Amino acid sequence: MDKVYDKKGLKKKSENLSDWYTNVVLKAELADYAPVRGTMVFRPYGYAIWERVQDVFNKMIKKDGVENAYFPLFIPYSLFKKEKEHIEGFSPELALVTIGGGEELKDPLVVRPTSEMIMYEMYAKWVHSWRDLPLKINQWNNIVRWEKRTYLFLRTLEFLWQEGHCAHSTHKESEEMVLRALDWYRQIYEDYYAIPVILGVKSESEKFAGGAATYSVEALMPDGKALQGGTSHDLGQNFSKVLDIKFQEKSGENKFVWQNSWGLSTRSLGGLFLVHGDDNGLVLPPKVAPIKVAIVPILGKKDNEVLKYCQKVKEALENENSEFPGKVTIFGDLEKSYGFRISETEIKGIPVRVEIGPREVEEKTLTLSFRIPEMTKKLMRLSEVGGKVEGILEEVQRKMFEKAKNFLTENIREAKSYEEFKSIMGSTKGFIKSYWCEGPSCEAKIKEETKATTRLKSLDAKAGEGKCIYCGKPAKFIWYFAQAY
Amino acid sequence: MDKVYDKKGLKKKSENLSDWYTNVVLKAELADYAPVRGTMVFRPYGYAIWERVQDVFNKMIKKDGVENAYFPLFIPYSLFKKEKEHIEGFSPELALVTIGGGEELKDPLVVRPTSEMIMYEMYAKWVHSWRDLPLKINQWNNIVRWEKRTYLFLRTLEFLWQEGHCAHSTHKESEEMVLRALDWYRQIYEDYYAIPVILGVKSESEKFAGGAATYSVEALMPDGKALQGGTSHDLGQNFSKVLDIKFQEKSGENKFVWQNSWGLSTRSLGGLFLVHGDDNGLVLPPKVAPIKVAIVPILGKKDNEVLKYCQKVKEALENENSEFPGKVTIFGDLEKSYGFRISETEIKGIPVRVEIGPREVEEKTLTLSFRIPEMTKKLMRLSEVGGKVEGILEEVQRKMFEKAKNFLTENIREAKSYEEFKSIMGSTKGFIKSYWCEGPSCEAKIKEETKATTRLKSLDAKAGEGKCIYCGKPAKFIWYFAQAY
Repeated sequence: MDKVYDKKGLKKKSENLSDWYTNVVLKAELADYAPVRGTMVFRPYGYAIWERVQDVFNKMIKKDGVENAYFPLFIPYSLFKKEKEHIEGFSPELALVTIGGGEELKDPLVVRPTSEMIMYEMYAKWVHSWRDLPLKINQWNNIVRWEKRTYLFLRTLEFLWQEGHCAHSTHKESEEMVLRALDWYRQIYEDYYAIPVILGVKSESEKFAGGAATYSVEALMPDGKALQGGTSHDLGQNFSKVLDIKFQEKSGENKFVWQNSWGLSTRSLGGLFLVHGDDNGLVLPPKVAPIKVAIVPILGKKDNEVLKYCQKVKEALENENSEFPGKVTIFGDLEKSYGFRISETEIKGIPVRVEIGPREVEEKTLTLSFRIPEMTKKLMRLSEVGGKVEGILEEVQRKMFEKAKNFLTENIREAKSYEEFKSIMGSTKGFIKSYWCEGPSCEAKIKEETKATTRLKSLDAKAGEGKCIYCGKPAKFIWYFAQAY
Repeated sequence: MDKVYDKKGLKKKSENLSDWYTNVVLKAELADYAPVRGTMVFRPYGYAIWERVQDVFNKMIKKDGVENAYFPLFIPYSLFKKEKEHIEGFSPELALVTIGGGEELKDPLVVRPTSEMIMYEMYAKWVHSWRDLPLKINQWNNIVRWEKRTYLFLRTLEFLWQEGHCAHSTHKESEEMVLRALDWYRQIYEDYYAIPVILGVKSESEKFAGGAATYSVEALMPDGKALQGGTSHDLGQNFSKVLDIKFQEKSGENKFVWQNSWGLSTRSLGGLFLVHGDDNGLVLPPKVAPIKVAIVPILGKKDNEVLKYCQKVKEALENENSEFPGKVTIFGDLEKSYGFRISETEIKGIPVRVEIGPREVEEKTLTLSFRIPEMTKKLMRLSEVGGKVEGILEEVQRKMFEKAKNFLTENIREAKSYEEFKSIMGSTKGFIKSYWCEGPSCEAKIKEETKATTRLKSLDAKAGEGKCIYCGKPAKFIWYFAQAY
């Protein structure tokens, strides 16, 4: 077992991001490969972060009146194919149950790749009057998409997510909901993951199959590639017309509802690990870290006294009502060497470490060491600890965000010519801001020649008078381009 | 919409339990039928109760060091069939994915009907040394079993549950875990659902496919049938031998681990609804009720004053740190009639109702009315409310439990002859305690002739000298028999 935390075996993030990532995800015990190709196990340390996201996100949505529910995993194929763009978009990724209870099924069952059809079939049954609106339901569940190339967390055959689905009486109200959900995703990324994101609308070719418009938050990974972090779809009346979801207005008139759906998945955790980690392993922001402080006893002659003091330190550092609910633990397998346990706190990305030996016991002090190099060690008396750690964790969280923010800012470039565009995509990568005519053929050519796709048009984009970076024809808006995960 | 809460449409529990049940589940908006036969939607009001169970249960298991994780939905068929009894038991209930991404799969995928095989395949990879034990992991997920006859909550093609899976170095430790989990289920039923249960071990024919022994908690439904409420399996070394899960002892010796698994599902909610409901609808115990107090404004000339006062009452009744975390709401659609809203609080089984009209505003009082007839109305001054409601809710919870306990006690009978046994099963039903020789043929005959199965041998059963109720041969233990859901 000792070799699991052998630093020699750890790949360097600076040398090969992809190898480093897989290595760290496995070594920090965030996840493991499962028997079916492309599937993975969320191990307790990784799943605890998702539980934290669930907790935070549930508070946000419940405050807004969104209620949790659960809809079936199986969607009849005959129902799924009712919306044409929807089935076209998802068809290559479907897993189908064809045998149930030993018998071949007449109508195969789609294992949900998203729940619009199954949920809205029910909405059609439940919505009758303006009084039934808005209908705001979210569910936390598992999703299956038959991906060809898979990658732990970032792209797997099965993943976990939340999907919110609302029906409203007006398009305006639905659009407001779309942007509210998008802002919740911004908060998860910026305030919890310490990852700055760009908010905006996707191009026609990149939008959700069956939707009217797709909004997303996009983050930048260390290799200069973008990660689509969460999406919020304005579905217009596309689905309500197909499934006949009508309501009676106060005036008596019958109208189709306006809908939206929005999802954040465990994919986002992949982004979290990629952005902050370093050559020594994972680095977790305090707000989502399952363990916020690891107390590491230095064992020797005075074991009992040291362990007793560790317990006192633990109690002093614990705060039930913390904004940082991660555990304070006397860390690791005490039969392992001191050095091994220290490495383990690093690989697992625990924000704060407190090493306790006979000297600390005698002096009644403790020293906080930090996982990020931007913080210097802090020595304090045990009697003075109360209430101090919260502020320190805030500082760590802020510094992590600032560092990621600087990286993002440095890697948003404006390309003045297509030559420059290609040159950037061939070297540093990152986001490129360019005018684009919004023609799908320019978009396709750029992708073919540079691997960069349109990521989004920023929410605050203003119409200007520019020229398309590819064809040179008049273009109204600046778009963000990047290679993407 | 008004007809949804039309009492005329409500079936009587006393006349036909099954019709009443389905009717109440639909009308209280706990669940609805979904497009695929045998599947259902957990609507927000029903799902909120499950969220409450999750919350309570997570606290219990985490305190004991069990960690949550997530394992894949899909199990390769080739892996699933490795344990012979396991595949034999589950084979008739499997849903199989045979097509993925448009291609036929060589090895079909089993949609998990339980996760022993997929989890233990990973355990074999993770467990090497005594230091890795015990390994205690739980997951909350969705399960698919191809049931022929389905029933909302109680038996559906897909259901939600938690499944805990532990590996230990000794059988003794594993057995202790089995009983600890069983006691958690007892707590959920007795302390939260207000349903008394009997704890014990199942017969050979009723045990889990592939396990060594199965323990369960059994509850009694109003029609005299038993509901298996939660099961905890001692798996012995059956799975560790098939999947080669070995660990090295301190002594250096290699041994197979001892395992157990235990599950509580959304089926239990069906029991909750069946036990406490009455002719007016659902009756929910305060500890799991999503809404604990419904404030019902009596609207008329003084709407504004009444609504303002309702808000004050709401604030006075709310208690963030309550053992009864259900919401206090100003209830219902205020455009609906007063009578309609009252009926709605009844159908939804809300434990406490507070009707507020101009008189209450003037006198600064409120009256608590209760969903259960065993409580009498309580008039109090608004200024005196603080802290009082917790105790009252405790009283409601206790009275509900006592009533159910009395029903259970009255319906456990000892049959002195097989004639008496048959007569009881043909009339009142309930549990029958009888000596049984533990021979599978007597068990099968009794089932064939009376529809009663062996439910369990009580945990505190003591060996005696009796005669089998069926064959008259010597029998050591008294067993519980009942017809079952």
